Amino acid sequence: MHELSLETYKAQFDALLVSDPYHKRYLSGFTGSGGHLLLTQSGSELFIAGKYWNQVAEQSPHCHRVNTDEAGWIATLQQRLNQLDIERLGFESHALSYQDVSVLQQGLSQQLVPTTEVVTPLRRCKSPQEIELIRQACAITESAIESGLADFKQGMSEHQLAAHIEFHARLLGADSIDFLIVVSGERGALPHGRPSNRIIGSCELVTIDFGVVYQGYHSDVTRTFCTGQPAQALQDLFDAVKTAQQMGVAMLRPGITASSVDRAVRQNLTQQGYGKAFCHGLGHGVGLQGHEYPILNESSQAILEVGMVLTIEPGVYIEGLGGARVEDTLVMTQDGCESLTTLPRELRDIDSISVNALK
Amino acid sequence: MHELSLETYKAQFDALLVSDPYHKRYLSGFTGSGGHLLLTQSGSELFIAGKYWNQVAEQSPHCHRVNTDEAGWIATLQQRLNQLDIERLGFESHALSYQDVSVLQQGLSQQLVPTTEVVTPLRRCKSPQEIELIRQACAITESAIESGLADFKQGMSEHQLAAHIEFHARLLGADSIDFLIVVSGERGALPHGRPSNRIIGSCELVTIDFGVVYQGYHSDVTRTFCTGQPAQALQDLFDAVKTAQQMGVAMLRPGITASSVDRAVRQNLTQQGYGKAFCHGLGHGVGLQGHEYPILNESSQAILEVGMVLTIEPGVYIEGLGGARVEDTLVMTQDGCESLTTLPRELRDIDSISVNALK
Repeated sequence: MHELSLETYKAQFDALLVSDPYHKRYLSGFTGSGGHLLLTQSGSELFIAGKYWNQVAEQSPHCHRVNTDEAGWIATLQQRLNQLDIERLGFESHALSYQDVSVLQQGLSQQLVPTTEVVTPLRRCKSPQEIELIRQACAITESAIESGLADFKQGMSEHQLAAHIEFHARLLGADSIDFLIVVSGERGALPHGRPSNRIIGSCELVTIDFGVVYQGYHSDVTRTFCTGQPAQALQDLFDAVKTAQQMGVAMLRPGITASSVDRAVRQNLTQQGYGKAFCHGLGHGVGLQGHEYPILNESSQAILEVGMVLTIEPGVYIEGLGGARVEDTLVMTQDGCESLTTLPRELRDIDSISVNALK
Repeated sequence: MHELSLETYKAQFDALLVSDPYHKRYLSGFTGSGGHLLLTQSGSELFIAGKYWNQVAEQSPHCHRVNTDEAGWIATLQQRLNQLDIERLGFESHALSYQDVSVLQQGLSQQLVPTTEVVTPLRRCKSPQEIELIRQACAITESAIESGLADFKQGMSEHQLAAHIEFHARLLGADSIDFLIVVSGERGALPHGRPSNRIIGSCELVTIDFGVVYQGYHSDVTRTFCTGQPAQALQDLFDAVKTAQQMGVAMLRPGITASSVDRAVRQNLTQQGYGKAFCHGLGHGVGLQGHEYPILNESSQAILEVGMVLTIEPGVYIEGLGGARVEDTLVMTQDGCESLTTLPRELRDIDSISVNALK
């Protein structure tokens, strides 16, 4: 639960309706889906279906609860607004449908004021509690990759390996799987390839990019593995990516622009002969959403600050050959950054991890 | 891919912007996230990010593709609309944010006409192809439950059993897990309980309610199992639920109202002494969404038609004792219905399914 002072916005509105599910969770602590949070000068009220009544009391004791079962959330909110001394109600215009705003406005004497960026800036630097949850999400993700690889057997498909990794993530306590990319051989050239029925062969690169959700917070890590020593071209490609990734991480410090880090890593890969093969942005923020502010790419306006959690994930993708990516989730510190993902970054052989290979 | 005739709506608008992701998929065949579909008198155009270019060509060959990478989807759509002979553009007011509609309206001379229920009615009766996909989703779901139960060992928690069931569903080809409820013992009294760390004990009821997504289509099935013969009160409770469920299924025929089926099942459970313990609706439609039209409850206005796919899922929940639910996903036929879920409905002992118990 985090606080938002309405004082800053008093020229714009007297109260704010928070409907974005991530913003609602951030400000109220309530983890359930549904519900709308009304912030007034005197406190916060959660408009919520009756089935969440006890959960709200537990998770958001500071929120007044308003049951919406009988009249629906819009009519219930209208009734409540007409009791309060509110003239201008701010609402999140990206998070309410045109239809809901139209219905809400009908029969409401208060002025509705569209807002967009009230809560997002608050979320950009993470609290120690948030960092701890992201750290735990990352730990689950990395353990699950290791355990999934321990299950690996010759003849397994990308899809089967992915199922094993997801299985371990769920056993380890992941609330849900955010996404899982497993691409091998030539499919490594797909930056966002879904696991396919392709059998993972020998002397190939295998890129695993995995994110889970733990207590609402996301993780994101990519490691590239091999199945026996790959061809020199693949080893070179991997080495270039790893070098570029470590260079990007080493640049991180408060005050640096996101675009300059992206540019430097891109230049580094260009110098290594892989410039055009790095076809996506360098990274993104991680928190209640898997991709959030700040975005790290060439056109980013973001300046990095202490407490931001973000990824550095350069990759090289060459059609007909394959690809590699190395990605860490890192938290910005006074001195630079700390990586929340800690699996070895070198090109490890899956056979050295698999239990089945040892038999 | 399904067709929508704009002729019916010519008094309201000349073209329709389809932004609801399920509606967009239904009408275009395109399975990717993102994108907006413009239907005009002369055809359909998909406004889409460049990364989906090839996927659209493959999945939606009848759609003209418009790349939105450069200017974003709204500006790209505005440019296109100004080339076309359109005066009134219908849009789905539930599926576009207030912000997007505001930006779209700026600098557009065409009139924007909010609509809500243009595509939903088309989706209510499923085509043979859609029924086949739901059938396959149900088959994966049921096989995964059986395989998960085959992995069951004494001392396993609800959470661990759930992880095994999900694992098998993914191996069997589920695109994703929609939801999985595993509740045992007294937790059986929670209609929507998430799997917990509770160890599944002996002589308990275990309710498993599972849905996956396969090629975009959902499944939904609930079976109640036991771990050795439960107390008579639990056996009675289960028997009542099974009787009521079978009665509800037997009532299904084209032309009957959803509310009358709900009412009859509710009355049956009341007569059996469990009226108040059935605290949710009887069922819901299943298709591209896990819950869609028609809803089966006391206030439903729906009349059942051939081709509708829906669930019948009465349950009984008694705090301090436990609960049971039996649910099938069924397709309405000329004569009545056919169940797409076929696992035995009687109270089966998990020990008779588990491989580990036989050792």
